Amino acid sequence: MTQFLKVKTAEEVLSIIASLPALSEEAADLDLAHGRVLSRPVEAPEPVPHFPRATMDGFAVRARDTFGASESLPALLEVSGEVLMGREPDVRVESGRAAIISTGGMLPEGADAVVMVEHTQPLDERTIEVTRPVAPGENVLQVGDDLPRGREALPAGRRLRPQDLGVLAALGVKTVQVVRRPRVAVVSTGDEIVPAETASLPKGKVRDINTCVVAAQVAEAGGEVGRRAIIIDDLDRLAAFCRDALEDHDVLLLSGGSSVGSRDHTLNVLDRLPQSELLAHGVAIRPGKPTILARVGSKCFWGLPGQPASAMIVFTAFVRPCLERLQGLRWDSTIRRANVRRAVLTTNLPSVHGRADYVRVALDEKDGILLAGPVFGKSAMISTLSRADGFVVVPEHVEGFDAGSEVDVFLFAGG
Amino acid sequence: MTQFLKVKTAEEVLSIIASLPALSEEAADLDLAHGRVLSRPVEAPEPVPHFPRATMDGFAVRARDTFGASESLPALLEVSGEVLMGREPDVRVESGRAAIISTGGMLPEGADAVVMVEHTQPLDERTIEVTRPVAPGENVLQVGDDLPRGREALPAGRRLRPQDLGVLAALGVKTVQVVRRPRVAVVSTGDEIVPAETASLPKGKVRDINTCVVAAQVAEAGGEVGRRAIIIDDLDRLAAFCRDALEDHDVLLLSGGSSVGSRDHTLNVLDRLPQSELLAHGVAIRPGKPTILARVGSKCFWGLPGQPASAMIVFTAFVRPCLERLQGLRWDSTIRRANVRRAVLTTNLPSVHGRADYVRVALDEKDGILLAGPVFGKSAMISTLSRADGFVVVPEHVEGFDAGSEVDVFLFAGG
Repeated sequence: MTQFLKVKTAEEVLSIIASLPALSEEAADLDLAHGRVLSRPVEAPEPVPHFPRATMDGFAVRARDTFGASESLPALLEVSGEVLMGREPDVRVESGRAAIISTGGMLPEGADAVVMVEHTQPLDERTIEVTRPVAPGENVLQVGDDLPRGREALPAGRRLRPQDLGVLAALGVKTVQVVRRPRVAVVSTGDEIVPAETASLPKGKVRDINTCVVAAQVAEAGGEVGRRAIIIDDLDRLAAFCRDALEDHDVLLLSGGSSVGSRDHTLNVLDRLPQSELLAHGVAIRPGKPTILARVGSKCFWGLPGQPASAMIVFTAFVRPCLERLQGLRWDSTIRRANVRRAVLTTNLPSVHGRADYVRVALDEKDGILLAGPVFGKSAMISTLSRADGFVVVPEHVEGFDAGSEVDVFLFAGG
Repeated sequence: MTQFLKVKTAEEVLSIIASLPALSEEAADLDLAHGRVLSRPVEAPEPVPHFPRATMDGFAVRARDTFGASESLPALLEVSGEVLMGREPDVRVESGRAAIISTGGMLPEGADAVVMVEHTQPLDERTIEVTRPVAPGENVLQVGDDLPRGREALPAGRRLRPQDLGVLAALGVKTVQVVRRPRVAVVSTGDEIVPAETASLPKGKVRDINTCVVAAQVAEAGGEVGRRAIIIDDLDRLAAFCRDALEDHDVLLLSGGSSVGSRDHTLNVLDRLPQSELLAHGVAIRPGKPTILARVGSKCFWGLPGQPASAMIVFTAFVRPCLERLQGLRWDSTIRRANVRRAVLTTNLPSVHGRADYVRVALDEKDGILLAGPVFGKSAMISTLSRADGFVVVPEHVEGFDAGSEVDVFLFAGG
């Protein structure tokens, strides 16, 4: 393992993440595909619509029969039948004739357009007046007008939303090829950490917060939480667990205790893992400096700060993009910024020299304007955890932001 | 059933929704509570921290011993021991003495403050120089400083995010009282609709899109999808299904076919259901006018437009808030606007007189600015479904919006 100090900027860490390959693909049933990411584009296996379809309620006609029609000189057409919904029409529209048709109905043979019912008047039981001309093809979707056969309906790298599932349903696609969800192991370490279930807390101990928060964040980012564990600061046990977990997980998230020695532990654990390569040893952000990123074979290893607020910030800033990248999510700014909100600062945010400052903020709204105010209180306080909605980045070489300026807020949770 | 026409504005429909009572509460294990909504506040069952805790690495001291200390005249203290992480200290700090302590360590008896390691110098193996004074309590969280026993840690109506689970874990809370998820039945009707699984599509038929899209939207809104069905426009079967489904579902979503008669069907179905009361018969928005909202006993009945794009708009605008309301989500603008993004219009949006216009838009980003452009193409086209990210509302009495103006975009999907 290359051991020299590799403190990276946030941008450098993100470009390492951007270079990670997506995981392998697998098939997913449409019913279970919500939120999965397409590994390849979906092309229309058949044209949509697959029959010429009315887009308005009215009358199927030959357009030529309506040419020159007006309020003062309407065209007279004989109603020779009706198109039933969901049926192939049993009526043919001859010259001088019309057939009643509803939105979505199949255009009968002979007809080439639909006159909206609003542009007609009944003259008698069998005759209508058409008061406006229609062009051939008007108010009709031709075969393949919507999606021709073979046209890309959904792109690779798309996370499937409800509306995308609708397109797949329309196309009769039953299974799609998606990227495997990253399987993530979550470990907390630290001599002071006891399981959250501990009823009576001994003096000096605190309950584990990180595996709980991080596991929920993994789920929100589309990952699958596998093993969860709390391991005291014992190098042998920690290294054994990590080696084992990396066998059947794609990502390992190890959050350190807050003791001075924990960070070195993380490096020592890495040293004992085969094929490990340190990619970032520290990130120049505050909080979150002790963050570690390494590759172990083809797997990702993250060392997160033990402090829950810091771990949450580092997860949101780096681990979430990492999980999205592994899922093959299209890596552009629109996607990357799905958890970003623009908000107006309620107070000045001064800068800290020498590194980027990640300041936790709470969102509020007034008169339709989203407001962001810094969350006060020592960052060790767990009560501040749930008061913060996200963070604002004050970059290293920026003097800080003034109250009233518009900033990007990176949300901790889905939104 | 009161049958006279009740076309409502969007605001009127939202205020009906706001008046719905939340569903009953139930207990949820912490592991399964992610995304659930608290039915009552959670109070801290014990103080946090439950022992005086160092917030910095350094030395536990008696503050008085450091008064007047400076670089030129440091205070000399004898290091009499070390506080181990996760342990009750076995050292007592007497006057003139100090104990090594890490962030998160328990303050030993006798000490009342922590001097940061940066403000000390080792003089010899057993002695340190303190170069700055500390006040009593400095760099220490006292018992209950973070959360006193009995203090509200999380409010009722909060949807539990990862950071909220962290607070519950810290408090040792194993189960929480949450509001029941609304159980939702989803029905598509229309003679032209066939199941999405249909491999070979007969002429005149289209595959069902709505149950698939709506079910995914229900899941994103925190609801639980129960029965899903496609029922052709047969009043008896439809009424029987609805009566049956309302027995063990809280909400029924019925999307109509696009034929002229379907809308009346919905009303006729309602007529046959016991204790039904029509609350809205049409909403003055476009698209979405044929929307129906009724109460059937204590259950909610929604009639949605058959057109998938319109159904998606009506779901996002009304059904989603309805499901959130039933879950007891805090009904304020911050929550209500969780799916709203501010974006800059790329083109003019003209208004339509007489009703509010809900215009579908696609989002894009350029130089950190979120842009919204209208989605072109007939609304019947399914290819436009997945191109749209959400919609912009042009209110009834507004002339429209100019290109370059900032607007609210209501997202269809979680984000």
